[in-house]
Amino acid sequence: MTIKVFGHRSPDTDSTGSPIIWAWYLSEVKGTAAEAVLLGEPNTEAKFVLERWGQAQPAIIEDVEEGAPVVIVDTNNPAELPANINKADIREIIDHHKLAGGLETSAPISVTIRPLACTATLMHQLMGEDAAKMPREIKGLMLSCILSDTLEFRSPTTTDTDRALAEKLAGELGISIPDYAAEMFAAKSDVSAFSDAELLRMDSKEYEVGGVKFRVSVLETTSPKAILDRKAGLMEAMKQVAEEDGVDQVLLFVVDILNEEATLLVPNDLVRQVAEKSFGAKVEGDTVVLPGIMSRKKQIIPSLKV
Amino acid sequence: MTIKVFGHRSPDTDSTGSPIIWAWYLSEVKGTAAEAVLLGEPNTEAKFVLERWGQAQPAIIEDVEEGAPVVIVDTNNPAELPANINKADIREIIDHHKLAGGLETSAPISVTIRPLACTATLMHQLMGEDAAKMPREIKGLMLSCILSDTLEFRSPTTTDTDRALAEKLAGELGISIPDYAAEMFAAKSDVSAFSDAELLRMDSKEYEVGGVKFRVSVLETTSPKAILDRKAGLMEAMKQVAEEDGVDQVLLFVVDILNEEATLLVPNDLVRQVAEKSFGAKVEGDTVVLPGIMSRKKQIIPSLKV
Repeated sequence: MTIKVFGHRSPDTDSTGSPIIWAWYLSEVKGTAAEAVLLGEPNTEAKFVLERWGQAQPAIIEDVEEGAPVVIVDTNNPAELPANINKADIREIIDHHKLAGGLETSAPISVTIRPLACTATLMHQLMGEDAAKMPREIKGLMLSCILSDTLEFRSPTTTDTDRALAEKLAGELGISIPDYAAEMFAAKSDVSAFSDAELLRMDSKEYEVGGVKFRVSVLETTSPKAILDRKAGLMEAMKQVAEEDGVDQVLLFVVDILNEEATLLVPNDLVRQVAEKSFGAKVEGDTVVLPGIMSRKKQIIPSLKV
Repeated sequence: MTIKVFGHRSPDTDSTGSPIIWAWYLSEVKGTAAEAVLLGEPNTEAKFVLERWGQAQPAIIEDVEEGAPVVIVDTNNPAELPANINKADIREIIDHHKLAGGLETSAPISVTIRPLACTATLMHQLMGEDAAKMPREIKGLMLSCILSDTLEFRSPTTTDTDRALAEKLAGELGISIPDYAAEMFAAKSDVSAFSDAELLRMDSKEYEVGGVKFRVSVLETTSPKAILDRKAGLMEAMKQVAEEDGVDQVLLFVVDILNEEATLLVPNDLVRQVAEKSFGAKVEGDTVVLPGIMSRKKQIIPSLKV
């Protein structure tokens, strides 16, 4: 039975590219039938990357069958996975996020989580010498995942390992990292086709702190103005999204990739309090700029207080 | 702050030896202050192994302090760890058991779980070339952990990797595996000093199936008769242990290491039903022999039905 390899819901570049990389490794190197699938429509950057490296978009699945063999990459959080994930036959987990708890298996499996910026970097380590067998398009996906997750090495999640691998791959591919990253970020920043509610859910993780359930949404962009111009609509949509998704509050951080700062929308007193307690920010008006804040994983989630 | 490295409660040889091995690696190779500790009195085999390799018994701790740096080995199950484990600063997890769910961290850490027989084998892999730096006593502990967890390669959990490493270490140490394993198993089989209730809790994991909570206890021995002669007392003690530990039923499997079979004590209809449904056994009387059953992890837990 073909193993399905997938990342998290609302797939970004790493959750789109890494399943393809690992399915290639399992099928072509290990001789185990495997296919990459997606748990939703990839974002505009991921779509650009697929096209750039001549990869068909993997099929989108809603759920997994009981007992179906799966490999989970780029998450270990059941909230970001199909509802019946614990009834699937989870064969392996490869991730770089905090331990969420909640995934269970009935027998021992391989789990590898490392504090690297990018799942694809960890896959390269796991492949060992077999990584030399990667064809051009798999190398291209790997480079794209690293540039995306590190925001071209600007994110504080970036490790020397991620950076060295990206530079090695770019060299082998004959690609200029600054030029290629600029193309990727332009694709990611083109969000004009999405509604306000879609923007709030595009790159979003639920997180509970002090009894308050948040949807912590991040939009990484080289054009923050295009998003901040929609501030009124986004704040209005927060109420509906929170209600529909069963959370108390949506937090939207607009990450300015080039200026290395985030702007948090402040629609009410709860969010003002969060901004002050979590980031020591002084809030005046309905937005606040948080200098240096680029990473939900490393900076926002660990700081969050109510 | 010194990192505390520990395995599960009711430490067996792997949960006693592996923390010492990893604390050696962190301190002596990586230059990170670390010390091995235990979450309880080691079993008789583990005590024998410590003495054989000239190792002082690590301190026993009851709980961990909030924010204290810890490395967890040989388990990922909060039920086998201090009550406030999720408030500690978990730095790393190295294990070979099924994913239990429940451990959480606030930031990404290294987690390595592999379907190997023994945590010490996985540590050898993680050390890479640094494994060559292991002194004689650390190699001896590593060999002991593998022989213990594989029951001298008889357990179906044994992988080629575990076996090859044990044979390599025994060669380097100039040790006869059959002779040394026989000494270890004799030490493990000497349980005369323990009460019936202590025997039931010695190597025991809680597991819930079909709404029924079990304490699944295993006694690995080369002298099954010595334990089965205490059958009446053990069955009587099951009621009290179940009540005190908040489970519905204790299951005691007496694993005959040399004959590669287990004897399950059958004190009542519930256990008879478990034996029949889980292992297709025909039960007559108050014990049943299960040929080939040696591993709780690989054979008992995955089969358990009510």
